[in-house]
Amino acid sequence: MFNIDVLTETIAKRIDRERKRVIIEKDGKEDEINYDYLVIATGSKPKKMPNIEADGVTTLSSPDDAEKILDMWMDEKLNKAVIIGGRLRGIEVAEALKLLDVEVTLIEPTQLLPELDRDMATLVQKYLAEKEIRVITNASVKEIIADGSVRAVKTDKEEISADLVVLAIGVEPNVDLAKDCGLEIGESGAIKVNEYLRTSDKFIFAGGDCVETINLITGEPVYFPSGDLANKHGRIIGDNITGGKSKFPGIIGTTIAKVFDVTIAKTGLSEGEAKKYYDAVSVVASMLDREYYYPRFGNIRFKLIFDRKTLRVLGAQCVGSGVVDKRIDVVATAIQAKMTIDDLANLDLAYSPPYSPALDPTITIAHVARNLYDGLFNAVSTEYVKKKLNSDETVIIDLREKGEGLTKIEASNVMNIPLSELRERLNEIPKDKEIITICPVGLRSYVGARILMNMGFKNVKATAGGLAFW
Amino acid sequence: MFNIDVLTETIAKRIDRERKRVIIEKDGKEDEINYDYLVIATGSKPKKMPNIEADGVTTLSSPDDAEKILDMWMDEKLNKAVIIGGRLRGIEVAEALKLLDVEVTLIEPTQLLPELDRDMATLVQKYLAEKEIRVITNASVKEIIADGSVRAVKTDKEEISADLVVLAIGVEPNVDLAKDCGLEIGESGAIKVNEYLRTSDKFIFAGGDCVETINLITGEPVYFPSGDLANKHGRIIGDNITGGKSKFPGIIGTTIAKVFDVTIAKTGLSEGEAKKYYDAVSVVASMLDREYYYPRFGNIRFKLIFDRKTLRVLGAQCVGSGVVDKRIDVVATAIQAKMTIDDLANLDLAYSPPYSPALDPTITIAHVARNLYDGLFNAVSTEYVKKKLNSDETVIIDLREKGEGLTKIEASNVMNIPLSELRERLNEIPKDKEIITICPVGLRSYVGARILMNMGFKNVKATAGGLAFW
Repeated sequence: MFNIDVLTETIAKRIDRERKRVIIEKDGKEDEINYDYLVIATGSKPKKMPNIEADGVTTLSSPDDAEKILDMWMDEKLNKAVIIGGRLRGIEVAEALKLLDVEVTLIEPTQLLPELDRDMATLVQKYLAEKEIRVITNASVKEIIADGSVRAVKTDKEEISADLVVLAIGVEPNVDLAKDCGLEIGESGAIKVNEYLRTSDKFIFAGGDCVETINLITGEPVYFPSGDLANKHGRIIGDNITGGKSKFPGIIGTTIAKVFDVTIAKTGLSEGEAKKYYDAVSVVASMLDREYYYPRFGNIRFKLIFDRKTLRVLGAQCVGSGVVDKRIDVVATAIQAKMTIDDLANLDLAYSPPYSPALDPTITIAHVARNLYDGLFNAVSTEYVKKKLNSDETVIIDLREKGEGLTKIEASNVMNIPLSELRERLNEIPKDKEIITICPVGLRSYVGARILMNMGFKNVKATAGGLAFW
Repeated sequence: MFNIDVLTETIAKRIDRERKRVIIEKDGKEDEINYDYLVIATGSKPKKMPNIEADGVTTLSSPDDAEKILDMWMDEKLNKAVIIGGRLRGIEVAEALKLLDVEVTLIEPTQLLPELDRDMATLVQKYLAEKEIRVITNASVKEIIADGSVRAVKTDKEEISADLVVLAIGVEPNVDLAKDCGLEIGESGAIKVNEYLRTSDKFIFAGGDCVETINLITGEPVYFPSGDLANKHGRIIGDNITGGKSKFPGIIGTTIAKVFDVTIAKTGLSEGEAKKYYDAVSVVASMLDREYYYPRFGNIRFKLIFDRKTLRVLGAQCVGSGVVDKRIDVVATAIQAKMTIDDLANLDLAYSPPYSPALDPTITIAHVARNLYDGLFNAVSTEYVKKKLNSDETVIIDLREKGEGLTKIEASNVMNIPLSELRERLNEIPKDKEIITICPVGLRSYVGARILMNMGFKNVKATAGGLAFW
């Protein structure tokens, strides 16, 4: 239809840049094709680990790999699986196997979801535990024990028996062809291209999973392979080799995955990444994606990262059963537009109860950020609160109303004062101690902290995101 | 909880700005309350029509109004309803009544959904017809025929019997209190405020449905009441009367409604509105909100309006069963950031099959816009195509493949040449006539038009959005 010759079962062996020819091999014979412009779209290949080869050890890079796993399952030979790699793609594989009733263990050498901050990743880890997926973090794989086919995975901690081992430790660019003909390779190991996606040879373009791109927030070259990027590159290269002048500026690192009924998404920099480049500060909050009276609402645990100096939005992470993708896409757009948290708060988004609360979570998290920046409250994490349990220097005020029926926080220094009674019971609260307010989602913690601060308490902290982050 | 005194059953009668007092009436007695700052949040009231008063004629401004309608229905006295006003809120009422099995007629003096362009509004009108809601446009109401209670509505066209008449012709700001004390009222009829939401009296702020705001795209004052606006105003005024300096820049007119299984949404200017201020041009396209292989995908009819001079995005409208709110919110953010169609095409949005195709519809519509701007094709509307049916000067090429099993376009000048056969059958197509390509959603119309243009055909036009807009 498009008048394109497609050569299948053909290997591109070499590029002769001087003669502008590609040396190919088909049916065992060499041949040459000349070009005006050449486009390299060699993609990526899954990373492998050394000395890990046995039947039942696989990556997931083609539909065949998935078919083989399904065959094992159909033959009732798949009962226990170990996934090596705890990034989003590894978790997606864990979900797929768990839905087949396979016993799943996920091993990650660092933290679960190293692309997220630890507070958000912890929410996912709790959720995977609920779904009976075992996660082992900070563990390195020492050996695959095989006997014809795989039997177990041995880490520095323990041995886990397995019929199947899936390597999900990421991909690397296929750059052999480009490297061999002397094209410039970037710091990231992928092919270096300019904003027109032209390589160091002006007659050769490259795009998709084999090229390096620019992170628009840090300005640094990165390797960020993804399906949408490859699609965008295709159009831009197609335009540029036919006389156009289309540019691809770069990426900000937006990513998303559905795991059971929860969505995990990130855009821009994590707090950890942002702190390397900016005076970065973050807020978290727990919210509903719609008004509580509307059917089918879900929750969103929202983290926003911004620059304290310019108030520019640098990143966001969301985990929740609610509509997360919309919020991440809006923040992604705001980041690319270099918007501040105030710009975010003033967005004119589509409001009607089937779609959002009157103030969208994106706007609310911007308000929380502004409150923190303005010094209206001090936020502490649930991790911090846990360290202060039973401390004589600290009083933790649980602001939940009587009869909310949630689990009590067991510690000697927890007082239950419902927010509605707080103003009348101020005299019960010691003035000389650190006071931490806590509640289910963080809103009352904030209100309670504000009341206490206004009534003269000096050392007041609110638990960010509330018990939802416990 | 917030230490706020709430005076219920109390009427604010007058504002004495000189003495900074509000004169109130409670239990028939007058009293005064002094203020440092006063906030006017008097909201709006539904517009009424003259001489339209009878039992069974109502607006919808309080839960009581809805309760009364439900009571009529429970008493089996509600079989036929007429809704006067065909804007989004009128259509929402039509849906609610239809779901109660009431026979519904909607009367609008101009076009259905005057806030949208006609092409998009027509899609909604077709959908309402499928749902058996009768829509009468360009009709003015002459008389309500009542006999104790309402019996019928008489327009300049016909008489429609009715047990219930709902006036949904919009709201107007409640400004009496502000006007009486001499505060400045804007051109729109609402209270004039500056970006801090301060009125012409520096001790008086106003927000919500009673104030005027600025349209950020045209720079002009407008009245745009909405729940999210009122919420944002509340926070900003709260901040400013307690020593803060928060600003509200204005709105771009984002709006949304769910009607049965379809979402209707708009952000920014319509094409009609945009043409008054810019060299505005528009594109439409029909798309899926997810890849076709993913369960639960829906469709989106997407219209994008941009400025031909600067390529700045000016507005968007979407109608469809797919996830529309996300796309409208992204475009809304892009409009507030003054992004161009190229910026939109390069957004790094969250891609994974449960959430979007590899190229999100927002990116695809930006590509379509760029194609039009670059002169890669000429787009015509289905309205235009309909006018050319049976014309000797025009050939309409239906590019659908054999066996797609869709309704044939009946006209003497329609040729069916499947896109897959187009290159071989060029000789069947006259070179001297206007050629219009058509297909289900517009993609093949574009590809077919490109092939014909490249093969030397001069006067080629593609049907924008395809038969989905027929």
